Amino acid sequence: MKRKACCEVGIKSIDIDLPEQVPEAELIAKVHELNADPNVHGILVQLPLPKHINEEKVLTEISIDKDVDGFHPLNIGKLAMKGREPLFLPCTPKGCIELLKRSGISIKGKRAVVVGRSNIVGLPVSLLLLKEDATVTVVHSRTEEPESMIREADIVIAAAGQPMMIKGSWIKSGAAVIDVGTNAVDDATRKSGYRLVGDVDFDQACKVAGWVTPVPGGVGPMTVAMLLKNTLEGAKRVIGQ
Amino acid sequence: MKRKACCEVGIKSIDIDLPEQVPEAELIAKVHELNADPNVHGILVQLPLPKHINEEKVLTEISIDKDVDGFHPLNIGKLAMKGREPLFLPCTPKGCIELLKRSGISIKGKRAVVVGRSNIVGLPVSLLLLKEDATVTVVHSRTEEPESMIREADIVIAAAGQPMMIKGSWIKSGAAVIDVGTNAVDDATRKSGYRLVGDVDFDQACKVAGWVTPVPGGVGPMTVAMLLKNTLEGAKRVIGQ
Repeated sequence: MKRKACCEVGIKSIDIDLPEQVPEAELIAKVHELNADPNVHGILVQLPLPKHINEEKVLTEISIDKDVDGFHPLNIGKLAMKGREPLFLPCTPKGCIELLKRSGISIKGKRAVVVGRSNIVGLPVSLLLLKEDATVTVVHSRTEEPESMIREADIVIAAAGQPMMIKGSWIKSGAAVIDVGTNAVDDATRKSGYRLVGDVDFDQACKVAGWVTPVPGGVGPMTVAMLLKNTLEGAKRVIGQ
Repeated sequence: MKRKACCEVGIKSIDIDLPEQVPEAELIAKVHELNADPNVHGILVQLPLPKHINEEKVLTEISIDKDVDGFHPLNIGKLAMKGREPLFLPCTPKGCIELLKRSGISIKGKRAVVVGRSNIVGLPVSLLLLKEDATVTVVHSRTEEPESMIREADIVIAAAGQPMMIKGSWIKSGAAVIDVGTNAVDDATRKSGYRLVGDVDFDQACKVAGWVTPVPGGVGPMTVAMLLKNTLEGAKRVIGQ
């Protein structure tokens, strides 16, 4: 999907498929090679990595100028801190904010609840919403009665990885609901034997929410679009220097 | 106060007083000198800096191995991210968690409200509470009706810099209240003409809260203690290598 999207917009993408048994040092050497290549403006290490490889170590080796995924801790630190600007925002969180803004939903002063606290979505999207002046609550697996908090939210970002966890009755009337979950559930009526559902019960949510994104087709394509945007911004920065 | 505390516990502290007009480059050169000095295990640049100096730039120059304040964006990024460990935690937030733990207050699953979102306190303490499995809400100057959220909190961290903003009626019975505010208010009865008060109306809060820290004398000394602890940990890390 990312490859196809690159092709469509005219970004040259290079796939480097390494065998699963690749030594960590070899993977890191490849990252260094791409760091040094002036024709490369963005590097994405596809996660998850095999167990024998230290994910943190590998991600930290990506030059922050080319960290189009925005997962480098230096980028996350700058994202968290007031008055600092990361070079890249993580793609899915950036896509969530873009979806809200393009839909004319104001964030400032609104109550936002983020469900989930992953490094990839929950945590960075909560930091972004805070920078946009929302009043932000992060609920997670240890939260008692998440529904009571979700029910008060003007904006809900669902990123827990729990199929259809969020019911229609949990949603405040008129709220904006961004469903980041992508969960495979058994479905005997499908040829594949499964279908994808979000963290939100979409059919129920539609009757209550002001806005709700579908799964698939909602946040997913936005994430890809933001990855392309990050890559373009990275290239512009290099060319502008 | 920091100097005195160092002396009491046997940490050698060196003061480098630079004139207010010091050029940025000279300050950075001094930081580099301390970075390179193997006898120095912690560097603290006293904030705020004069206006002609870029605070971000200077703080980023401190070697993260000696960043005992914990304000380097790489440290903040690692503090924010699940599964990552910063080399140092910012002192005041670390002190808040220490106060809770030493008082036997469980954090896991509890509702915590952080009032304020500064880089120094509000933001990092909210990230720490999240890592401790609290359900965390950050309220700030753009929040409408902060009292309704504070009233539901088992743990309140007040770090807004607003004298006695939080009234007794805003506090849930039995809650733990950590008051980080240190505000000078006019007081004609004092020789100095002012007195220090927190962000919490202490006299009122005492009647409702289960725990409440005083200002002065609560969080302040803990911050100093954590700075010493960070310095000791930094030294141990170097010696252990």
